[in-house]
Amino acid sequence: MHILITGAAGMVGRKITERLLSDGHIGKREIAKLTLHDIVPSDAKPTENTSIRPIVGDLSDRSVVDRLVSEKPDMVMHLAAIVSGEAEADFEKGYAVNFDGTRHLFEAIRLQHYEPRVIYASSIAVFGAPFPEPIPDDFHLTPLTSYGTQKAVGELLLNDYTRRGFFDGIGIRLPTVCVRPGKPNKAASGFFSNIIREPLKGEEALLPVPDTVRHWHASPRAAVGFFMHAAEMDLAPVGPRRCLTMPGVAATVAEQIEALRKVAGEKAVKLIRREPDPVIAGIVSGWPTAFEAKRARDLGFTADESFEAIIRVHIEDEHGGHAPIMD
Amino acid sequence: MHILITGAAGMVGRKITERLLSDGHIGKREIAKLTLHDIVPSDAKPTENTSIRPIVGDLSDRSVVDRLVSEKPDMVMHLAAIVSGEAEADFEKGYAVNFDGTRHLFEAIRLQHYEPRVIYASSIAVFGAPFPEPIPDDFHLTPLTSYGTQKAVGELLLNDYTRRGFFDGIGIRLPTVCVRPGKPNKAASGFFSNIIREPLKGEEALLPVPDTVRHWHASPRAAVGFFMHAAEMDLAPVGPRRCLTMPGVAATVAEQIEALRKVAGEKAVKLIRREPDPVIAGIVSGWPTAFEAKRARDLGFTADESFEAIIRVHIEDEHGGHAPIMD
Repeated sequence: MHILITGAAGMVGRKITERLLSDGHIGKREIAKLTLHDIVPSDAKPTENTSIRPIVGDLSDRSVVDRLVSEKPDMVMHLAAIVSGEAEADFEKGYAVNFDGTRHLFEAIRLQHYEPRVIYASSIAVFGAPFPEPIPDDFHLTPLTSYGTQKAVGELLLNDYTRRGFFDGIGIRLPTVCVRPGKPNKAASGFFSNIIREPLKGEEALLPVPDTVRHWHASPRAAVGFFMHAAEMDLAPVGPRRCLTMPGVAATVAEQIEALRKVAGEKAVKLIRREPDPVIAGIVSGWPTAFEAKRARDLGFTADESFEAIIRVHIEDEHGGHAPIMD
Repeated sequence: MHILITGAAGMVGRKITERLLSDGHIGKREIAKLTLHDIVPSDAKPTENTSIRPIVGDLSDRSVVDRLVSEKPDMVMHLAAIVSGEAEADFEKGYAVNFDGTRHLFEAIRLQHYEPRVIYASSIAVFGAPFPEPIPDDFHLTPLTSYGTQKAVGELLLNDYTRRGFFDGIGIRLPTVCVRPGKPNKAASGFFSNIIREPLKGEEALLPVPDTVRHWHASPRAAVGFFMHAAEMDLAPVGPRRCLTMPGVAATVAEQIEALRKVAGEKAVKLIRREPDPVIAGIVSGWPTAFEAKRARDLGFTADESFEAIIRVHIEDEHGGHAPIMD
C-alpha cells in the first residue's frame, strides 16, 4: 500500500514515518511507498520494501496538493499545520494552510473519485474554557484560538466528506504531546515538556505557571500509537461522528514534578526554577484539563498509563533508557 | 445607519426588510439605507427616510461580495444560503455559496478594517441525531447534511472573527420556520407548514410522517423578532460563544393538528390527508426535537407562546386575521 503523510517533517510526522518504515506494514498490508510532504525535505531513507516520494511545498498551493494525491495513495495521514502560536500571530497564514490547505486536500481526494482512508490530526485546542471537568465526548467545540477554529472546521469537513462517501475519515484530537524532544521553544505549552526534558539533561527549566495547573498529555509514542490504531481499525463502528478526543493522562504540574522526582530524583527537580509569567498563565487558564475520552477508549485507542510512564517513554526513546541526570 | 441584508429576497429576508422599512430605525438609530442583496432583484421600495441599494449576484463571486461591503454598512444581516435540500443535491454549489460565500463576506469585512455588527442566520440543522431531549446549549454540533456542516463552519468563523475584533458577530440558530407562506414546496420540512397553511385556505395537504414526530418551530414573525433583537441588544454579555440556539415551540404533529382544530375547526383538520412517505420519515427522524435554548432566553430572545399562537400569527400576517376555511 501507499501512504501519504502531510507534515512528515514535524515531530509527530517524523516519528510516524520511522514507525511505518520499521514496521513495514499496516495490519497485513505491506507498505510499498510513502509520499512524504512538508515545507522542508524529509530526511527519511527508503528501506528494502518501502520507497519514498518526497514532496516539498505549501498546502495552501492547490497545485502542490494535487500532486500529493495524483497517485491515489491508499491512506492519507494529514498532520501538516501552522501551529497554534503562529496561526494566532499570522491570521492569514494560519487560514491559508490550516483552513484552505485542509479543504484543498479533501477536495483533491474527492475529485480523484476513490475512497482512501484519511486520518486527520486535530487537537484538544478545539476546546476553550469554561467547561466541565472532565469534558464529556458530546461537549461542543469552543475554540479560543484561530488554530483551534481551523482544526474544528477540518473536523466538520472530515465528517461531511466521509458521510458523502468521498473518503473514509477519522479525526484524532491529540492531547498536548509531552515530553517533546528537542530544544525549549516559545510555544505557550512548551513548559510542560521543558520542565521534564531539560532537568533530565541536567539543564535548568523555567516554570511559568502555578503547580495547580492541570492539563491533558500523551507521549509522542502514544501519539504515534493513535495514528497506527486509526490506520488499522475498522472504521464502520465509529458512525457519523468521526472525530474523537484521544485518551490521555490528566496531570497537574505538581503531579508532573512528583513523577520526575520518582524517576530521576531530587537532583532533577531542583533544576526547575519557578518564574511566574502572567501572560502564559492567562493563556493556559483557558485550556482543557481533563476529558472522558470514552468513545476513543471504547474504540481501542490507548493512553500512557501515568505521567511517570510518559517520562520513562521519553528516557527510553530519546536517551536510550538512561538520562544524563541519572548518572 | 446603513444595513446590508444578504438573501434579502428570501422569505425571512423579505419580512426583515419590510420590518426595517416600516420601523425606520434600530433602537434610536435611523435607518438611512438598506443594501439588499440576492440572486434575484428585491421588490422592496424605498421610503421617505430609507434609500435602497439593490445588488444582484452570487456570494461565491468575491467581486460581488466586495461590492456589498464597499460602503462599510454599519450592520450586516447574512441570510443568503443554498437551502438544505439543494446543498445536499449539489455538493459544489452548496459549498460555493454557503461555505466560500460566507468566508468571502467575513473576509471582505475584515479587509475593510471597521467593526460592524454581523448577524448570521444559522440553523438547527447543525444538529443531527442522536441527541438528548431537550438538547442543552453545550451539546456538540453534529450536522448530518452538507448544509448543516456549512452553517456550522460559518458559526466557527463568526466566533473567531469576533474574537479577533474584525467584527462584532452574533449567530442565530433558527428553528424550522412555520407556517411558511406561499406554495407547498418539496423541502423535506415542507409538510410542517403545508398541513396548516393549505387547510386554512380550504385546500388539502399531505402528511408524510407519523403524528408522533416532534420538532422545533418558530413563526416567521418570531424569526424576524430574533434578528431585530440581535440588531438592538448589547453583545458584550454574550461572551466568546456567539452562536445561540433560538427559543422555539416544541410540538408533535399531533399537537400541531390539535392546535389547528382549536383555531379553525374540524373542517380544516379533515383536509389533512395521511400519505406515509418512508423517505421523508427517515430524513425527519434525524432532526432535533426540542432544545433548552436557555442562553438565548436569558439574553432576551423570545419564542412564540404556543403552536396555536404560531397559527394565529400566520392568519394575522397572511390572511388579515381571517382564513378562508373560517368562513
